[in-house]
Amino acid sequence: MRTERAPDALRAVEIIPRFTKAPAGSALIRCGGTTVLCTVSAVEGVPRFREGRGGWLTAEYAMAPGSTPSRSARESSTGKVKGRTHEIQRLVGRSLRAAIDLERLGEWTLHVDCEVLEADAGTRTASITGGFVALALAVDHLMDRGALASNPLRAAVAGVSCGIVRGQALLDLDYGEDVQATVDANFVRATPGGWIEVQATGEDGAYTRTELDALLDLAERGIDNLHAAQRAALGAAAERVWPKEIADG
Amino acid sequence: MRTERAPDALRAVEIIPRFTKAPAGSALIRCGGTTVLCTVSAVEGVPRFREGRGGWLTAEYAMAPGSTPSRSARESSTGKVKGRTHEIQRLVGRSLRAAIDLERLGEWTLHVDCEVLEADAGTRTASITGGFVALALAVDHLMDRGALASNPLRAAVAGVSCGIVRGQALLDLDYGEDVQATVDANFVRATPGGWIEVQATGEDGAYTRTELDALLDLAERGIDNLHAAQRAALGAAAERVWPKEIADG
Amino acid sequence: MRTERAPDALRAVEIIPRFTKAPAGSALIRCGGTTVLCTVSAVEGVPRFREGRGGWLTAEYAMAPGSTPSRSARESSTGKVKGRTHEIQRLVGRSLRAAIDLERLGEWTLHVDCEVLEADAGTRTASITGGFVALALAVDHLMDRGALASNPLRAAVAGVSCGIVRGQALLDLDYGEDVQATVDANFVRATPGGWIEVQATGEDGAYTRTELDALLDLAERGIDNLHAAQRAALGAAAERVWPKEIADG
Amino acid sequence: MRTERAPDALRAVEIIPRFTKAPAGSALIRCGGTTVLCTVSAVEGVPRFREGRGGWLTAEYAMAPGSTPSRSARESSTGKVKGRTHEIQRLVGRSLRAAIDLERLGEWTLHVDCEVLEADAGTRTASITGGFVALALAVDHLMDRGALASNPLRAAVAGVSCGIVRGQALLDLDYGEDVQATVDANFVRATPGGWIEVQATGEDGAYTRTELDALLDLAERGIDNLHAAQRAALGAAAERVWPKEIADG
Amino acid sequence: MRTERAPDALRAVEIIPRFTKAPAGSALIRCGGTTVLCTVSAVEGVPRFREGRGGWLTAEYAMAPGSTPSRSARESSTGKVKGRTHEIQRLVGRSLRAAIDLERLGEWTLHVDCEVLEADAGTRTASITGGFVALALAVDHLMDRGALASNPLRAAVAGVSCGIVRGQALLDLDYGEDVQATVDANFVRATPGGWIEVQATGEDGAYTRTELDALLDLAERGIDNLHAAQRAALGAAAERVWPKEIADG
Amino acid sequence: MRTERAPDALRAVEIIPRFTKAPAGSALIRCGGTTVLCTVSAVEGVPRFREGRGGWLTAEYAMAPGSTPSRSARESSTGKVKGRTHEIQRLVGRSLRAAIDLERLGEWTLHVDCEVLEADAGTRTASITGGFVALALAVDHLMDRGALASNPLRAAVAGVSCGIVRGQALLDLDYGEDVQATVDANFVRATPGGWIEVQATGEDGAYTRTELDALLDLAERGIDNLHAAQRAALGAAAERVWPKEIADG
Repeated sequence: MRTERAPDALRAVEIIPRFTKAPAGSALIRCGGTTVLCTVSAVEGVPRFREGRGGWLTAEYAMAPGSTPSRSARESSTGKVKGRTHEIQRLVGRSLRAAIDLERLGEWTLHVDCEVLEADAGTRTASITGGFVALALAVDHLMDRGALASNPLRAAVAGVSCGIVRGQALLDLDYGEDVQATVDANFVRATPGGWIEVQATGEDGAYTRTELDALLDLAERGIDNLHAAQRAALGAAAERVWPKEIADG
Repeated sequence: MRTERAPDALRAVEIIPRFTKAPAGSALIRCGGTTVLCTVSAVEGVPRFREGRGGWLTAEYAMAPGSTPSRSARESSTGKVKGRTHEIQRLVGRSLRAAIDLERLGEWTLHVDCEVLEADAGTRTASITGGFVALALAVDHLMDRGALASNPLRAAVAGVSCGIVRGQALLDLDYGEDVQATVDANFVRATPGGWIEVQATGEDGAYTRTELDALLDLAERGIDNLHAAQRAALGAAAERVWPKEIADG
Repeated sequence: MRTERAPDALRAVEIIPRFTKAPAGSALIRCGGTTVLCTVSAVEGVPRFREGRGGWLTAEYAMAPGSTPSRSARESSTGKVKGRTHEIQRLVGRSLRAAIDLERLGEWTLHVDCEVLEADAGTRTASITGGFVALALAVDHLMDRGALASNPLRAAVAGVSCGIVRGQALLDLDYGEDVQATVDANFVRATPGGWIEVQATGEDGAYTRTELDALLDLAERGIDNLHAAQRAALGAAAERVWPKEIADG
Repeated sequence: MRTERAPDALRAVEIIPRFTKAPAGSALIRCGGTTVLCTVSAVEGVPRFREGRGGWLTAEYAMAPGSTPSRSARESSTGKVKGRTHEIQRLVGRSLRAAIDLERLGEWTLHVDCEVLEADAGTRTASITGGFVALALAVDHLMDRGALASNPLRAAVAGVSCGIVRGQALLDLDYGEDVQATVDANFVRATPGGWIEVQATGEDGAYTRTELDALLDLAERGIDNLHAAQRAALGAAAERVWPKEIADG
Repeated sequence: MRTERAPDALRAVEIIPRFTKAPAGSALIRCGGTTVLCTVSAVEGVPRFREGRGGWLTAEYAMAPGSTPSRSARESSTGKVKGRTHEIQRLVGRSLRAAIDLERLGEWTLHVDCEVLEADAGTRTASITGGFVALALAVDHLMDRGALASNPLRAAVAGVSCGIVRGQALLDLDYGEDVQATVDANFVRATPGGWIEVQATGEDGAYTRTELDALLDLAERGIDNLHAAQRAALGAAAERVWPKEIADG
Repeated sequence: MRTERAPDALRAVEIIPRFTKAPAGSALIRCGGTTVLCTVSAVEGVPRFREGRGGWLTAEYAMAPGSTPSRSARESSTGKVKGRTHEIQRLVGRSLRAAIDLERLGEWTLHVDCEVLEADAGTRTASITGGFVALALAVDHLMDRGALASNPLRAAVAGVSCGIVRGQALLDLDYGEDVQATVDANFVRATPGGWIEVQATGEDGAYTRTELDALLDLAERGIDNLHAAQRAALGAAAERVWPKEIADG
């Protein structure tokens, strides 16, 4: 098993807020060897199915071809968006929608874009964790511009992966661990709130409820630590937009 | 809450084996108002990444345009395979690969095709449950032809959906229930073995571990009943291909 | 030549009305080893080029990958709708539009979807014959709901294939015969009315007018028998929607 | 009815051989207001399904966007090849394959490309008639280069459209007539040989066998005249490649 | 170096106005072995980004598959428009927009379509030179119909390629020269006006400013001669639409 | 005119080498408000058309959706790679191939990927300038691994944009200047060597040779300064891979 890091330890997390200036909000997140640039663009208006029902948030995800040691093809060049990409985009969008009161958002569409610049496993959960910071900065920006009357954020959201490697439950796998895992799981929590997403897959063989419980325990602790990193990255903006129930807690 | 059916009751299940004769195996499954034709075609050879490592199983899923009261566009016509379709195909493939010892399969690729003829929720889990029957029939056919020396099936696999509707945990939702659910979950089990897939999503708000446990309880019972229906549908073939550990258990 | 069936005999025909419940009308047709699920969905409104000119009817056709002994690729996966598919869709649409008075239909679009579940030749003509039954049931359903004031069906439509195999003209070829045919023909008739479509192709060598006449003779008889099967399948609905000129004839 | 041209008269035909020099054979055909550039490119080798079975001939067809008074979208720009295009390509390929003994052609693939430069109806049959001239020139060129030992042409092939307009059967419709036609038909003949393709469609209402016979009569005469124009266009090359049975007949 | 033509000599130019009748304007241009059919279709209305700002002109370009000795794939068949095509379309559109006062054009969109029928290098500049003739004829046609109140042409536009082959600057390369060129350049000029486009690429090694100057000198002279050919091809229409400043100059 | 920066001054340039670790070489370049991540991945083998002729280098370019204040659609989602993207990819590839002796590279394909993270004009030239640094680092890495026997770099390559705004020639335009420019130009130079690419487009009106000369003067000076920034960013690696003729000059 891994020796340089405890089974329940996260990899080093670094979140650089406002890495780029063009979009309403942006954050570069590094989780160990995984690097993702998350941006949030605010566009007036909503898709037809949301008309008259408040705002909307949608996400896209792409791996830069050079993000892996052996180059991966660019999806715009192959003309095929892979199933894995679709799955991740849906997960990121769903997770971050749980962070926001769409009615209070008003008729805005928030586009979360996650560009994976370096991939060492855990890119989807890093996208969610970093995406929440970019989202909070975008909300802060819109409030500052007077485009939003009040803070629509209702919970902080973060995600983490776990897995079972040679029988041991581990938090926050890197690529070398991920390929050996017999169970592969992703967890997303909202605080306050609870679980937004639990996905646990037996890659090679099945798992028991006891094993599932061990993974849930690891994830709870990991996400608490990620929330602390998110809040620190927001700096002064956290005063204005971090969901009240936590700030007061 | 629903009155005509207990919270832990499955909808009526009917599985017609060998509904069509062309493929190696086929089964039509009806779960309440959901109808799926599952076929398994056996093609010699394997994709490059499997060469020298045994066989492979892959799945495709499509909703017939007329399967819903308001017609849904055909993906071959729009030229876009939706993210939802990709997600389901990956789930079905992964789940049924857990049923089979790929090394023992030898250099065959099994293509599972799930054509949803009528959609009243639970189409992905019906595809898995019916797909296993078609898979078992295909294996029986290949053994009968002498193309397989021994039975590569190592577990029976079935899936079921659950959800929380107005605070109550329910098994096997129909469409009317599904749209009201605040938590939406899909479960796949292998017997013998354990969980292959647990996916629980907070559609509108988060959920607690206690709620997750209630859904897991419902799913366990439901899948036991689906195994019984699968075995009955296989008839005499069950003697030859139903995974031994169960038959003997 | 074939011995088990006379040159002018159809294969066994079975038509199951309302095989699925979701669409306005549906029918499963089996012609020998060919099985097609035909559905008709009714959508309010018409394409722009029909505005103010009454209703519209359009058709789509797809072969399920498992419908043939050697699996055929799914067109939504390859991203390419084959020329053959386009050709058939246009034929089915054109043929069934001949069955209906579009002005009397009013501003509805009827989508005919033909899912080939098993393919043993003659799938396009089975789609037309079964499609007419689904169409008649959809019309009956719309009249029952009060969405149509009067019956817009003006003719029954059915199709059949013929061919010349080793010099002999044969009705309703199966796959084994089809691959040996030197002339391959498809015929569609409306009753009352006459020919809607005559298509005769020399696959390997040309044909004379005498040979064309022999094929037309076979098709006439075959289509009369298919009309009888269509009417029987409609049951009581035939009283309400079978085109009057025939009912009275 | 049309007054400036007899019901059984072709429009003015002009065929310019070798309009472009790059391909093995080319011909520009003008039938009234319809202009098509037909080229035949010879490529060594055959598609996999023809290996060891002689040569192959395949056709493509495209309407230039500026070929119609109201510009039509370019299919490469829309990314969608229309069903009509597929249908025509298949017809042209099938028809011209009837002109050639593929075994004698040897391992060559002939690509027939039909670029419609001006469209005033009858573009598919003009493509066939002009395509045969380009094909004959390509064969002549390959024989001259020593790439073919003997002439593989076994028949001359030409096509023509007919229709019923206000009850009268007419040969070689122009666009103004075509839009009024209640029956629309395309005929292809091989000489020597007979019919290769008969396609007659009731666009608005059905037709009788007597009407079909009238159209066949018109087509026979029209195609005889087109053969004369083809032979004249070939000039001296006709001596070398025009199918012997006719030359001697 | 080339001996049959001086380094500063154009290839033989032939421009046939109104080669096809369907579009508002058309011209077939032959520059040595390169043949392009240019058509201009006039469509009422403008793209959204031009609304209220006058007219628009856009261009498309396609090589017919049979235009080269070894057939090139049709872009509508491969479903991929090549980068080279996009680059040329943008160049042709930009160049011909420089010829026209879009405000004076009013709310028309002019579609320039360039079909390369034979390709012996210089197809993009031939498209611009021939396209201007088709454009002038379309303008003349629209003025004649009363659709335009006054002549919107403000300059004549033509293009030519140059290159450096074995150290010598050459005008109007053919294919044999083009493949040997170490510098490849395309020039477009408006008269009156000046340069619209200078593009010089070192294909294999870099070039000096002295060399660039030599190419610019060649291009100036070549374009003057192409203007003379354009004006001659327009015949009497030149009196009406050739930009006044030249006519008077 | 701009007051905060002289007409011949570059924007602030920052180049961060090895911004990501996965690919063979990478560099993040910031030119004023434009930020591009350039990576170079080395893949063994070459495309078929290069077999036996040494290595190859190819480039891709993509703008992240959040790189502009109003979000731009992701090309993988629209399924359409824009003409502008193709044009830029071809330019970047061509320019960087001029930096390298492909024969000496041996049978490697270098993939240059340029991800525009922030776009404030000049993204294509920033991609070239930053791409060269990533390329040099990749070469250094391959030499260090022993995969290359000697340094294949033969020239340093950098690019810069210029334009004419309200009659004045300006170096290195930002977005605000770019939209006002009447002439828009991009220049690429190799040192030692000379011009690789000169592209000057009259966006609204033509330009004279005197104006073109003024732009070339600005570009020469700008590129000299960019070379200094490239060399500084390479640090110690410059000793090993900066093209000798410069190092020694």
